[in-house]
Amino acid sequence: MLKKRLSEQLKFIIEIDKLKAVWRQSYLTDGSRKENSAEHSWHLALMVCVLQEYVPEEINLLHVLKMVLIHDLVEIDAGDTYCYDLAGRAQQAEKERKAAARIFNILPADQAQKLTALWLEFETGVTPEARYAAALDRLQPLLLNYASQGKSWQEHQIEKQQVLERNALIKDSSPVLWDYAWQLFQEAVEKGYLTE
Amino acid sequence: MLKKRLSEQLKFIIEIDKLKAVWRQSYLTDGSRKENSAEHSWHLALMVCVLQEYVPEEINLLHVLKMVLIHDLVEIDAGDTYCYDLAGRAQQAEKERKAAARIFNILPADQAQKLTALWLEFETGVTPEARYAAALDRLQPLLLNYASQGKSWQEHQIEKQQVLERNALIKDSSPVLWDYAWQLFQEAVEKGYLTE
Repeated sequence: MLKKRLSEQLKFIIEIDKLKAVWRQSYLTDGSRKENSAEHSWHLALMVCVLQEYVPEEINLLHVLKMVLIHDLVEIDAGDTYCYDLAGRAQQAEKERKAAARIFNILPADQAQKLTALWLEFETGVTPEARYAAALDRLQPLLLNYASQGKSWQEHQIEKQQVLERNALIKDSSPVLWDYAWQLFQEAVEKGYLTE
Repeated sequence: MLKKRLSEQLKFIIEIDKLKAVWRQSYLTDGSRKENSAEHSWHLALMVCVLQEYVPEEINLLHVLKMVLIHDLVEIDAGDTYCYDLAGRAQQAEKERKAAARIFNILPADQAQKLTALWLEFETGVTPEARYAAALDRLQPLLLNYASQGKSWQEHQIEKQQVLERNALIKDSSPVLWDYAWQLFQEAVEKGYLTE
């Protein structure tokens, strides 16, 4: 007989497979297709490992990794709202709260509580770990957009100012990465990937 | 001017985007399509977080997470060889060594060295962390195969004995998870997902 606890954990593991079917607006670097939120979360997790040295504050790396691995799970129910769709984003918060309540609670109560707290920490964005996770969550699509010659920006007629406002929080975690992002914006405008 | 070190790290981050284009033989749980190695790595990383309590040995969770996040990067050059393709697997080792040498060395030397060592640790499979990573690397496709009613097993005419041999190492990390895997095999055979 399978114990209730393990059975709940396995049910959660099967459930989260659905994140592979949530499509984002960013294209892969070669522009061949859009990426999904599971791939994005993996990419982000590896970036977290590689770029930690650019955060001046002390960071608990394990905590950030767990955070980025689960940060998009709510999209299984709530979907991915394009970051420049401001009307959509306003309604999104309530949908995501409900999604978190359903999805994390598939797990045994102690684990559900921990992952919910981790997700709320990410959403609130106050701790150094959450600010680092949020900074890379902005930088990752920026890198993909630049590499795919602004394909997604052009599809949605996004302008430089919108991208700058959206990404300014990178600075709150890492001035070095923000300098780099700034340079990338300039180049994206010069190359015509992004309009002024 | 972008510093050489950050430039190398960003080049690596762009390079690994290619793992999203490496397709595995496992189908998603709903059977709609096969999964790629980036999604698989993400799924595995979350399983690592959720199932740690079933490993009797002491485990450094951060170490396992880094390991599963990078364990398939060599497939960018070497491709994914189906686990039951024994002839293919024999040639794979050399291809993967070359791939590791190229891909990890895009990073600055200190990081390249660490990730190469981590990948070798996974491949060698001796430490508790590597055994746990390997166990879940077997369990994850088993769960997907069962959920998708053995779609991939049937496509490749895989038999129960092959799956049992392939997955026996789960036991070396976690007797509880092995008991569960064993139960899943029995059910897979009873339901006709897997032939005797």
